Amino acid sequence: MAELLVVVVGTTDVSLIPGISIAGPSPEATHYTPALDVEYLLTGRPKTLDVVPVTPDGIPTPAVVTRALTGDLPKLVVDAGSRIPPKIPRVVLGGVPGGDIRRGAMPREAAEEVAANGRLLGRQLARWGRVAIGESIPGGTTTAMAILLALGYDAWGRTSSASPDNPKELKARVVKEALARVKPPLDAVTAASEVGDPVHLAVASIALGVAEGGGEVVLAGGTQMAAAAALYKALGGDVERLAVATTRWILEDKSADFLGLMREVGVRRVYASRSSFGGSRCRGLRAYDRGYVKEGVAMGYALWRAESSGVDPLPQVEAELERLGKCYT
Amino acid sequence: MAELLVVVVGTTDVSLIPGISIAGPSPEATHYTPALDVEYLLTGRPKTLDVVPVTPDGIPTPAVVTRALTGDLPKLVVDAGSRIPPKIPRVVLGGVPGGDIRRGAMPREAAEEVAANGRLLGRQLARWGRVAIGESIPGGTTTAMAILLALGYDAWGRTSSASPDNPKELKARVVKEALARVKPPLDAVTAASEVGDPVHLAVASIALGVAEGGGEVVLAGGTQMAAAAALYKALGGDVERLAVATTRWILEDKSADFLGLMREVGVRRVYASRSSFGGSRCRGLRAYDRGYVKEGVAMGYALWRAESSGVDPLPQVEAELERLGKCYT
Repeated sequence: MAELLVVVVGTTDVSLIPGISIAGPSPEATHYTPALDVEYLLTGRPKTLDVVPVTPDGIPTPAVVTRALTGDLPKLVVDAGSRIPPKIPRVVLGGVPGGDIRRGAMPREAAEEVAANGRLLGRQLARWGRVAIGESIPGGTTTAMAILLALGYDAWGRTSSASPDNPKELKARVVKEALARVKPPLDAVTAASEVGDPVHLAVASIALGVAEGGGEVVLAGGTQMAAAAALYKALGGDVERLAVATTRWILEDKSADFLGLMREVGVRRVYASRSSFGGSRCRGLRAYDRGYVKEGVAMGYALWRAESSGVDPLPQVEAELERLGKCYT
Repeated sequence: MAELLVVVVGTTDVSLIPGISIAGPSPEATHYTPALDVEYLLTGRPKTLDVVPVTPDGIPTPAVVTRALTGDLPKLVVDAGSRIPPKIPRVVLGGVPGGDIRRGAMPREAAEEVAANGRLLGRQLARWGRVAIGESIPGGTTTAMAILLALGYDAWGRTSSASPDNPKELKARVVKEALARVKPPLDAVTAASEVGDPVHLAVASIALGVAEGGGEVVLAGGTQMAAAAALYKALGGDVERLAVATTRWILEDKSADFLGLMREVGVRRVYASRSSFGGSRCRGLRAYDRGYVKEGVAMGYALWRAESSGVDPLPQVEAELERLGKCYT
């Protein structure tokens, strides 16, 4: 079957709150991360800034894992709303960058455009066969929690983090302030426009279109995909049509509750990678086994897919990190 | 084999020159046409304006034919550079709307982005199988003539027109003034940025990526596709990989020279529709046989494809026009 990897990028001003996201060298820099991620994913190097997709400590962005393992897979980038637009071909849906959810995420009209156009895009892509949908949005685990709560799920403190030290108190404070303005349960578009972001809504809408068009959908991500699945369901999608693929690091994250959230939303098909990077010769990859990164840019799907075809992912990921000159032993 | 229809839209300020384009009720309105075309193609109705895709005389835009015949075909819209952005999912490449070629079409940097990103997009789409690439850009037969001349081809007065009265003298005057600023033969990016438009360059670049990625490319259009093929060749593409699909109305257009241009550029595989609309019960469709419209929005490909699968296109096109309430007898 033909497969397509869709990566939905966008920003939320939640990532500017100091301490909430480690997906960038500074809070302001997190707004560049989605663009750099997908520029690198498609071309092998970031374009917007002259950087490598690796932290100063040598920890690679999950896009490195995804790129290393998906050279054979066509990719389509959807820009749901980014402060820094990626300099590659990107599908736009009429969305805008997400604001700070304590004051509102985006105009209702923009959210409606994203929902309608995401669905229309998904309908076209459905004929491809299998469509895996990943994401890159720093601050996304916080907006995911807010979205789930706004839709009426008990998600307090159950979403994950790219950091080994999930800043749960800070995230809860931000989400609580955001939720104070609304009365759950909200509909999908209201939840996204009030306390969400453009990315989760776009993922949900594209998934809806693919499912309606008869394609196979795989949500490729961690706890954020519970929020996407919940939005999909709130948009009228049949949750039985959904599968989710993630990493072992997400499943093992004791600071979150991936399986519990998926169960509550009703997603029953969960695929997870089995690879450990603990034995890697690159210390940046060993850090993954200590809880850094965990997911993002469809890494879990890429790992699971490689494993399913009998490939050991680690040597390929190490080779890509070597190519970048960033395999520190 | 899986098929994908890519429609590349954009604008050139050449269409604002009174008398040069009939693709809109006024010169200014031509800037809305690409958006309305693809909004209708994907959703069944224009969104940006509350209009029907039919002239007051009942002559449908070619998008009506394409939509009537391609319900089963996935579609992707690429916005190479439009003054009025279509309100549907659209791939952007970093291009800008085209200026009046008498003063320069677009900044070199924008043309380079379109060329690089079009190629990158084509590479991803190549795995689809067959990629047909159509266009919607009022004024495009004029910029096509200028592009061909800038690349060193003898194209004076050989491109077609959506009007039964090809305004060849006016077009030649505009092109002559544009060409006065340059010294052919130019490279592809310079030709497009000086005297072209974003659309032809995007079509050429996407085709290049698809061909390089091992996909099958069909350029879906009239004499403009000679300009796209020439740009493709100037970008280093293997012209043997190209096929072109157009309408019988283009082949029969005595005001232009489709086959001669294709021969000169080196495109040897030419497919053409055989349908006549002369016996239609809708007078707007009968006008096609008198030289109105002729091509656009991949109409020739849609007709040829339907005919190749044994379908008589006319009843389906008439049914779509009926649905729009615009089949005047």
